[in-house]
Amino acid sequence: MRLRRKPWAVKWLADHADLVITQAKAETLKNNWQSIFPKEQPIMIEVGTGKGQFIIGMAKKFPDINFIGMEIQEGAVAVAGRKAFEDADELPNLRFVYGDGAGVDTYFAKGEVAKVYLNFSDPWPKSGHEKRRLTYKSFLQSYENILPANGEVEFKTDNRGLFEYSLGSFANYGMTFDKVWLDMHNEDPANLEQNVETEYEQKFKVKGPIYKYLGHFNAK
Amino acid sequence: MRLRRKPWAVKWLADHADLVITQAKAETLKNNWQSIFPKEQPIMIEVGTGKGQFIIGMAKKFPDINFIGMEIQEGAVAVAGRKAFEDADELPNLRFVYGDGAGVDTYFAKGEVAKVYLNFSDPWPKSGHEKRRLTYKSFLQSYENILPANGEVEFKTDNRGLFEYSLGSFANYGMTFDKVWLDMHNEDPANLEQNVETEYEQKFKVKGPIYKYLGHFNAK
Ligand SMILES: C[S@@+](CC[C@H](N)C(=O)[O-])C[C@H]1O[C@@H](n2cnc3c(N)ncnc32)[C@H](O)[C@@H]1O
Ligand SMILES: C[S@@+](CC[C@H](N)C(=O)[O-])C[C@H]1O[C@@H](n2cnc3c(N)ncnc32)[C@H](O)[C@@H]1O
Repeated sequence: MRLRRKPWAVKWLADHADLVITQAKAETLKNNWQSIFPKEQPIMIEVGTGKGQFIIGMAKKFPDINFIGMEIQEGAVAVAGRKAFEDADELPNLRFVYGDGAGVDTYFAKGEVAKVYLNFSDPWPKSGHEKRRLTYKSFLQSYENILPANGEVEFKTDNRGLFEYSLGSFANYGMTFDKVWLDMHNEDPANLEQNVETEYEQKFKVKGPIYKYLGHFNAK
Repeated sequence: MRLRRKPWAVKWLADHADLVITQAKAETLKNNWQSIFPKEQPIMIEVGTGKGQFIIGMAKKFPDINFIGMEIQEGAVAVAGRKAFEDADELPNLRFVYGDGAGVDTYFAKGEVAKVYLNFSDPWPKSGHEKRRLTYKSFLQSYENILPANGEVEFKTDNRGLFEYSLGSFANYGMTFDKVWLDMHNEDPANLEQNVETEYEQKFKVKGPIYKYLGHFNAK
């Protein structure tokens, strides 16, 4: 997803630096993220949050969890932030980081994040771009570095190639598989009932299967 | 697949005991399987071979490999055997075992089998029947017991639930994923070109995706 430049974004982000945190500030919060939320409760993050539909929906649905959406594109994170700001009263438990997911373990300490969500991550289909995929082993390593032992990763995508790749990446990293869904919107009603749709999911669920993976790292 | 009783099967099998080997005889061949083939070359097996379309196709395509199709249903293995017998000149490298795949490690010694194929295995969808699935961990253990270190398993199915389950079973057993295909007949032309279709595959490939897994065990 490439967005048009948003001329208002720079100023808006500067004015709302408590809601959308810069990468530089994120690094200073390591081990201290609970301080930016009104309530101390588990923190879950989405890497590549786009315009924020999923993480905003999750934050409303689960007020007893603190959520952080991470996004590398200025235009997208500004749109996400603005949406959350309009609903600020309902979203005390939501913040964003405008930054690169590759750096999660420079922002968070071991065990500081309870769960990592990946949704419709950019597929980077060329094999030469494998290292950019958010499920490449170096990313998995950085997620493991911020999760507790047995910390969970949940991943949804419509992209067959990325999902095929990611199953192998999770398995070969040594992650345990808790469940795989190969056509999430046409199976397992109990899962679907709990599901919070992402923007991409809403768009692509009518075009073909949505895949989902739930798994966890293992204590070493 | 349940077949009608075949009245001719018992006598036919008794008359062709060198082509379709009984379970009792299979146990006596442990460590000595090369003795029943004209050429000493790697042995690959299919567990649940049905009427034999795949294993016959493989044996014709790869004359430098010895193939064994294992099948628990008398009627099916008799049909498979009869088909192979009609083509016997072309199939010196093919035998069947009329027996239970659960016993593979009572028939074969460690390293005696180069690769295990599973095709369209019975799905046993009820969770109480998990142990009967040919990808349940006790089956994986028995395949590992007969393969060399790093021995491969290849698995195709149209059954979504069984494939979802099996991915988890392979991963959680500690197998390495070499490749996953989530719609084998509509991707990866190089793979498709090499593919030998099974009877079920031919029937079901027009109804939905065919899934495939290729992976291997690891030296311990
Ligand atoms: C295809 S969009 C999906 C957005 C949203 N998760 C959804 O499901 O609708 C992928 C998003 O991930 C962001 N992204 C890609 N790589 C990233 C990285 N390394 N760190 C943070 N965000 C990233 C992109 O900028 C884009 O907004
Ligand atoms: C659904 S059929 C598929 C046949 C064939 N592989 C194909 O793809 O067309 C599954 C076959 O596996 C056989 N089977 C099931 N469990 C088995 C076991 N434990 N040992 C050997 N064969 C088994 C069944 O009898 C049946 O013939």
